[in-house]
Amino acid sequence: MKLLIINPNISTSVTELILREAQRVASPTTQITALTAEFGVAYIETRFEAMIGAYATAELAARHAQNYDAVIVAAFGDPGLAALREVLDIPVLGLTESALMSACMLGQRFSIIAISSRIAAWYRETVQANGLRDRLASIRTLDQRVQHIASIQNDHAQALRLLCEQAIRDDGADVLIIAGAPLAGLARSLSAEIQVPLVDGVSSAVRHAETLVALGAHAPSQGSFAPPPLKPHAGLSPAIQSLLERKAIKPEAI
Amino acid sequence: MKLLIINPNISTSVTELILREAQRVASPTTQITALTAEFGVAYIETRFEAMIGAYATAELAARHAQNYDAVIVAAFGDPGLAALREVLDIPVLGLTESALMSACMLGQRFSIIAISSRIAAWYRETVQANGLRDRLASIRTLDQRVQHIASIQNDHAQALRLLCEQAIRDDGADVLIIAGAPLAGLARSLSAEIQVPLVDGVSSAVRHAETLVALGAHAPSQGSFAPPPLKPHAGLSPAIQSLLERKAIKPEAI
Amino acid sequence: MKLLIINPNISTSVTELILREAQRVASPTTQITALTAEFGVAYIETRFEAMIGAYATAELAARHAQNYDAVIVAAFGDPGLAALREVLDIPVLGLTESALMSACMLGQRFSIIAISSRIAAWYRETVQANGLRDRLASIRTLDQRVQHIASIQNDHAQALRLLCEQAIRDDGADVLIIAGAPLAGLARSLSAEIQVPLVDGVSSAVRHAETLVALGAHAPSQGSFAPPPLKPHAGLSPAIQSLLERKAIKPEAI
Amino acid sequence: MKLLIINPNISTSVTELILREAQRVASPTTQITALTAEFGVAYIETRFEAMIGAYATAELAARHAQNYDAVIVAAFGDPGLAALREVLDIPVLGLTESALMSACMLGQRFSIIAISSRIAAWYRETVQANGLRDRLASIRTLDQRVQHIASIQNDHAQALRLLCEQAIRDDGADVLIIAGAPLAGLARSLSAEIQVPLVDGVSSAVRHAETLVALGAHAPSQGSFAPPPLKPHAGLSPAIQSLLERKAIKPEAI
Amino acid sequence: MKLLIINPNISTSVTELILREAQRVASPTTQITALTAEFGVAYIETRFEAMIGAYATAELAARHAQNYDAVIVAAFGDPGLAALREVLDIPVLGLTESALMSACMLGQRFSIIAISSRIAAWYRETVQANGLRDRLASIRTLDQRVQHIASIQNDHAQALRLLCEQAIRDDGADVLIIAGAPLAGLARSLSAEIQVPLVDGVSSAVRHAETLVALGAHAPSQGSFAPPPLKPHAGLSPAIQSLLERKAIKPEAI
Amino acid sequence: MKLLIINPNISTSVTELILREAQRVASPTTQITALTAEFGVAYIETRFEAMIGAYATAELAARHAQNYDAVIVAAFGDPGLAALREVLDIPVLGLTESALMSACMLGQRFSIIAISSRIAAWYRETVQANGLRDRLASIRTLDQRVQHIASIQNDHAQALRLLCEQAIRDDGADVLIIAGAPLAGLARSLSAEIQVPLVDGVSSAVRHAETLVALGAHAPSQGSFAPPPLKPHAGLSPAIQSLLERKAIKPEAI
Repeated sequence: MKLLIINPNISTSVTELILREAQRVASPTTQITALTAEFGVAYIETRFEAMIGAYATAELAARHAQNYDAVIVAAFGDPGLAALREVLDIPVLGLTESALMSACMLGQRFSIIAISSRIAAWYRETVQANGLRDRLASIRTLDQRVQHIASIQNDHAQALRLLCEQAIRDDGADVLIIAGAPLAGLARSLSAEIQVPLVDGVSSAVRHAETLVALGAHAPSQGSFAPPPLKPHAGLSPAIQSLLERKAIKPEAI
Repeated sequence: MKLLIINPNISTSVTELILREAQRVASPTTQITALTAEFGVAYIETRFEAMIGAYATAELAARHAQNYDAVIVAAFGDPGLAALREVLDIPVLGLTESALMSACMLGQRFSIIAISSRIAAWYRETVQANGLRDRLASIRTLDQRVQHIASIQNDHAQALRLLCEQAIRDDGADVLIIAGAPLAGLARSLSAEIQVPLVDGVSSAVRHAETLVALGAHAPSQGSFAPPPLKPHAGLSPAIQSLLERKAIKPEAI
Repeated sequence: MKLLIINPNISTSVTELILREAQRVASPTTQITALTAEFGVAYIETRFEAMIGAYATAELAARHAQNYDAVIVAAFGDPGLAALREVLDIPVLGLTESALMSACMLGQRFSIIAISSRIAAWYRETVQANGLRDRLASIRTLDQRVQHIASIQNDHAQALRLLCEQAIRDDGADVLIIAGAPLAGLARSLSAEIQVPLVDGVSSAVRHAETLVALGAHAPSQGSFAPPPLKPHAGLSPAIQSLLERKAIKPEAI
Repeated sequence: MKLLIINPNISTSVTELILREAQRVASPTTQITALTAEFGVAYIETRFEAMIGAYATAELAARHAQNYDAVIVAAFGDPGLAALREVLDIPVLGLTESALMSACMLGQRFSIIAISSRIAAWYRETVQANGLRDRLASIRTLDQRVQHIASIQNDHAQALRLLCEQAIRDDGADVLIIAGAPLAGLARSLSAEIQVPLVDGVSSAVRHAETLVALGAHAPSQGSFAPPPLKPHAGLSPAIQSLLERKAIKPEAI
Repeated sequence: MKLLIINPNISTSVTELILREAQRVASPTTQITALTAEFGVAYIETRFEAMIGAYATAELAARHAQNYDAVIVAAFGDPGLAALREVLDIPVLGLTESALMSACMLGQRFSIIAISSRIAAWYRETVQANGLRDRLASIRTLDQRVQHIASIQNDHAQALRLLCEQAIRDDGADVLIIAGAPLAGLARSLSAEIQVPLVDGVSSAVRHAETLVALGAHAPSQGSFAPPPLKPHAGLSPAIQSLLERKAIKPEAI
Repeated sequence: MKLLIINPNISTSVTELILREAQRVASPTTQITALTAEFGVAYIETRFEAMIGAYATAELAARHAQNYDAVIVAAFGDPGLAALREVLDIPVLGLTESALMSACMLGQRFSIIAISSRIAAWYRETVQANGLRDRLASIRTLDQRVQHIASIQNDHAQALRLLCEQAIRDDGADVLIIAGAPLAGLARSLSAEIQVPLVDGVSSAVRHAETLVALGAHAPSQGSFAPPPLKPHAGLSPAIQSLLERKAIKPEAI
């Protein structure tokens, strides 16, 4: 299968990190392409930044999705995920949702470990929109401002491990979600030191994408994820126009 | 005070309807400007359409908000509302949130009367994001496809009245929210025939905007609605760039 | 418009404080009368005290409301608010509900800052009855017994500021509600020092009362806030009798 | 033990019905006294009527409770129950709470069968204040106005049985609560015809009162049900004054 | 009445402790038999141990229940309680559920004091299955491994008292549930030192069992607690077979 | 990888159906073994039957799991799932949980289509234990007694399709879960006729099992899914004894 990963942020170094982590866990027959948002911010911590990332992701998805079997929106918080699900006729996955699903199959309550205190509110709202607030033991975050998004795992290794231990001991977490694309792979490297399962968004999303394709569920033509009703529009990019006019679904080429 | 209303959709006829309803209820000293989205769809029924509307609204708000005391996002479902609250230092209101607040002060449980069955999921999620699901008695909708957005009130007057009566009798609603900008003013015209209070999003938002300005609460510099942390960005419009760089807050002119 | 504020407690000094704060924020054309409960306690901290305050408020409302356009129940916890809404045909507002509505339009999660630890349970139950428990970040209270209700703002200025800062930093509050009529005005005076919006019950209630009158929603004749069914009664004051017999609605004079 | 039952309504016929049902189920050594509210309405259907009933109940409890081992507030909806718990140092029980506790020990989800559609909102709010909304399968009510409160069981036997059957079949109820003092005893007489357990508020409350006395839990001096802090008061009846000044607890006589 | 208490664990010393506490509170005419699980573990702390205890309890109940008027499953966490309710036609009670019901009639929010940190997750899930999570103030536990289950009350008296005080002061508990059969009786002995009511599972269950028998609610033949539909089975003990074939209900003898 | 599927029921025909459906969707390198419970009932509809199925599953898992990489508990309702997760050091999956996870990645709200009305309560409680009640649109069931478990798909094809259509149109389902091992494969065969994605428990569980193995999360040694503390036990089968004594984890052979 062909899998499209879209980084809703403009950081190509993070896109590369995501792609490496994705390839490590993907099945041999899965071909992965990773795209970086053409506009937006370096990494998403807030609702406004997520709104920009959602739009940038939609534009890339509209242009490219018809050549793929599934799409992953590769920022924690899943910007634009539910929106894209309405207009694409292939599975669309997000890092948070995918990590939550993995975590739910490994324990009852999970904590989220994240890179900045500012990001906590957005993550909490994402968990809540997934209906899983009752299973959220805590969100624990580094309390400093993010300085270097590319080196964050090395710069804060000790602090991140401590957050994990506190979540287990003080918050009652059965599973830990290591959140945020810049932390992709950390779950794997920390795993030996931490006494509960660690879950990573990128690798979860890649495997769940393969699963949804294998299960073969078709896109809906009824319900709230059917394509939006046809109606007048204006000022949209050709790719998004095509989506709304349902011309872009599975064409031969871009 | 100067109030900016942004219609996240491209329908100028709906913008005019909103403006008329807004002016009818505004205090004498409130000056209202209404803008129409420069890109997007005719009216929003789904999450994808809301995502487009949010971005179009953000662009207009970024360009114009500095000349106003408050902004209203004038589509039910409040596309982009929470995002805009982070970057503007003036009150930002939405039709759904405003109607919910009015309804909560008039009764315990409310129903929402809306124009299309497709719109129900998006409204339900909006109520849920407001934390008010337990007070939602029901959402009742016209079951036909919307044909003429401008004449919807006349075309379906009888059907809309019937939905109101069913919500009161069968669902236990204490208050009814007449939802969607295309129904602006219907609450007023139906009021005499319906036995519980009717709430309208536009007029609620205008009055609540005046209230928030009068109460004088300043914009946050901490908490999850403080401006996003400064960080690299690319490819954004000048207006949105200015917002992210905090240059655009309260300048003398555009 | 003519606005009646009823202090459910017997403290005339608090009534005066409320009235001053109310007049400061009211529109020029709003005339405000403030009445003090004729029986009850000095300030309400518990459910039993609230029950007394509710009855004292009902008696005053029954006697005077027909000369006004809206009534405010001016104690946090809103004693008797929902009950009065059934029997008066004008808007009835409460300090807690009004503050909650303002807070919800300024952020996602709010904390309540209050004057005594004993009062916290009653406030929590009030928030819960409003269906907003998921948006309550915390209730933080002074931990000493209240000594002088009139000077509480001066006596505890430093401690109250500290509670605000803890709610923002440790509890994730986006907005703070300064609760309790004895703290009326504190939101205003603390505002410059605190990094998130502060909300006050009295000023919120006054502005929301003006809004509900302006919106013109009529009283219900169906639903759970319609007047109680006519039935035998005994031993009630003439004013409450008139309410139950629906004689008192909008007479010429008292 | 000595048990005081207070009917918050003025209907002596209902008091007699309650007393008969109470005596039927009480242990041989339990002595029961039943008092009727000295002021109020014939039966409670709304929040305003409940507020009156709460105050009338408080007055009687304040005057008489010191001679008893437990008090039952004998109207569905439990007017004033939590308030009285703060000021009496003996167990205080209510019909709704008691019926809910019995129902929870007999099945997972319960329905409430009640005498008037108007009463449903008040009951729903009572269940919610008990934190048990998730176990409420439905509230089903007679849809006519109550005519003769004393003969309601006979007048509507067939309709009440039908409501029971619908709640089981259509709403998934495991247990049925026959609600409202005027229906006291109906659970017993309907029992043979209905295929799930029926629960009655009066008999549940009597037995639970005996249990709480037998378990011997003392009254709290901390927590939110400790007596209210001493403070100035005015205009209260001697009995309620004594409660607030903690003079009335367990004296020799009235 | 004849009451059967089944200890789902193999500790006969705990069975004796339970029996003593039960007899202390039972009505004079109640005859109590206590049985110990024939297989299982020394005390239950986890879901797997609870699953074993449930099955051991079911076997004993199937063999003996027909000679009794009610059955108590005497381990906190109520292993197999809901399952047994389907197949026995007499009341079945559990320690947690019974304690929760008592606690709900004594205050609004309760904390649970328990013997090991490992046990907290199982208790939390039990409270949640009872639908009472919103009334749970906290679970506080000894943080050491249990060494001697028989002497745990003496070994940790001081630590348990401290947990109680913290729950009241820091967590806002109105009532405390002293959880776990090995702590039976502790509520009574600690009562004088603690400022809020203490609730014990064993004594609560005994009295509630007497109540359910006195109320006379019959077993359901519809709803989700009616006996399971007849169907093929294999490999079950004779006693459980009889239950499933509905032969064992109220026979003359074992 | 080697996957063990345990049917908690005694129906070998259902085990075969499950195995066929599992093999159809499994990756080429996955080897599947399917075992049938050695004791229990023909199919599980109630809590008591689930308790038996859980114990029968635990016995088989204790005997065989050490030779596998993951275990699937193959009855809807997931009998014993959380319990087994504590004692096995490999991933353990259930049909309901797996179907819920798939459904959550395909839409916002799901309905469950099931084979008997009796089964609905057990399913509802399972969804609730997964914390996903807010996303459950409805449970719709055949209303007849199950006659022939092996031919149920053919016997009721038309009725099952109708339930699907009602769930979409009347309940607002975005996704449908076809529940119960006897309906394994129905999602696939109905798929072309139904306008929203259909989800099947067996195929979901197989793919999610492969995913959890691929993600490589290790078993916990802390948190509530760590192995139960070592303690005295008696009367257990050798296999379950070994689990509790942690001897059975990953030995060379049975």
